[in-house]
Amino acid sequence: MEGEDVLVLALAQRATRTQACAVMTGWEEPISYRPIGVIRSPHTDPAKCPIQPRYARGIEGRIEIDPAFEEGLDDLDGFSHVVLFFHFHRARPCRLKVVPFLDDTSRGVFATRAPSRPNPIGMSVVRLLRREGRVRYIADVDVLDGTPLLDIKPHIERFGVEGPLRCGWQEAVDEAEAERRGRREA
Amino acid sequence: MEGEDVLVLALAQRATRTQACAVMTGWEEPISYRPIGVIRSPHTDPAKCPIQPRYARGIEGRIEIDPAFEEGLDDLDGFSHVVLFFHFHRARPCRLKVVPFLDDTSRGVFATRAPSRPNPIGMSVVRLLRREGRVRYIADVDVLDGTPLLDIKPHIERFGVEGPLRCGWQEAVDEAEAERRGRREA
Repeated sequence: MEGEDVLVLALAQRATRTQACAVMTGWEEPISYRPIGVIRSPHTDPAKCPIQPRYARGIEGRIEIDPAFEEGLDDLDGFSHVVLFFHFHRARPCRLKVVPFLDDTSRGVFATRAPSRPNPIGMSVVRLLRREGRVRYIADVDVLDGTPLLDIKPHIERFGVEGPLRCGWQEAVDEAEAERRGRREA
Repeated sequence: MEGEDVLVLALAQRATRTQACAVMTGWEEPISYRPIGVIRSPHTDPAKCPIQPRYARGIEGRIEIDPAFEEGLDDLDGFSHVVLFFHFHRARPCRLKVVPFLDDTSRGVFATRAPSRPNPIGMSVVRLLRREGRVRYIADVDVLDGTPLLDIKPHIERFGVEGPLRCGWQEAVDEAEAERRGRREA
């Protein structure tokens, strides 16, 4: 397709989707967010980026917060872990069925953590190492360099999930295999 | 202020904020999401809505997914818990310092779970009870009725956070007091 055709198709798809959503939610306007900062990491190749903080142990990076939001960082440094919310800016277009990194079977995208989601919001719980003005150094970073940061929340132990837990298709994934695939080693 | 003045002020603030963010992230366009569905719950009054699933134990609700995204729900029902991402559609305007529900001291907003954030993204881990077509019945619901749903991810035990943990100002909050405040009991 020519560039213009692609644009027209994209706009048509967006219009259809808006209409469908409006029926369900009564929500017609897009929900617009702006980055509060950026995530810096050694990961520049999506094909080599670890898929979870668990498989990125010890890998360091930083978050650089926009000066406009610096005051919001007060009291954050008492927490050992923070939850980063970010925009998967290099995700492929949305697919409703995906083959997860840790499996070889196609799954519904909402049953996976894959980036190519209808709304490509990413979430990672990372360790907070130290502060330097508007910058926070972090560890266990599984996020691509240059990723737009949308929100930070403290990780709060008392709000944790209580069992019993069932983890669907993930329960059949061998841990050693998960570790190998999750680190994205060749 | 008159309605028009409020609009002009809002647009001016948005322009300033865009500019500030662009400096940091190189990101000039807003990031636009569309609801994938809606969250239904018995909570209609923000002042009485529990603040976390932990303080909403047993309270049932449901998520209604837009037909366009139904296929993405495949394989979800094997998980006992799912993470809901949603737009705090009734949040007050953003404040960088807030007094959290569980405390009486003003804190940086990123060190709290308060809804009035720069990007009002909410996250709740709820129990998945049963399916009915595009509807999933859920429990431990701390979300207001009619909330636009942005994403669903499975809660995966093996991706959990490893200690030791420090929880900042939250560590000084008494658990019985947290339970009382968290349930929003009078």
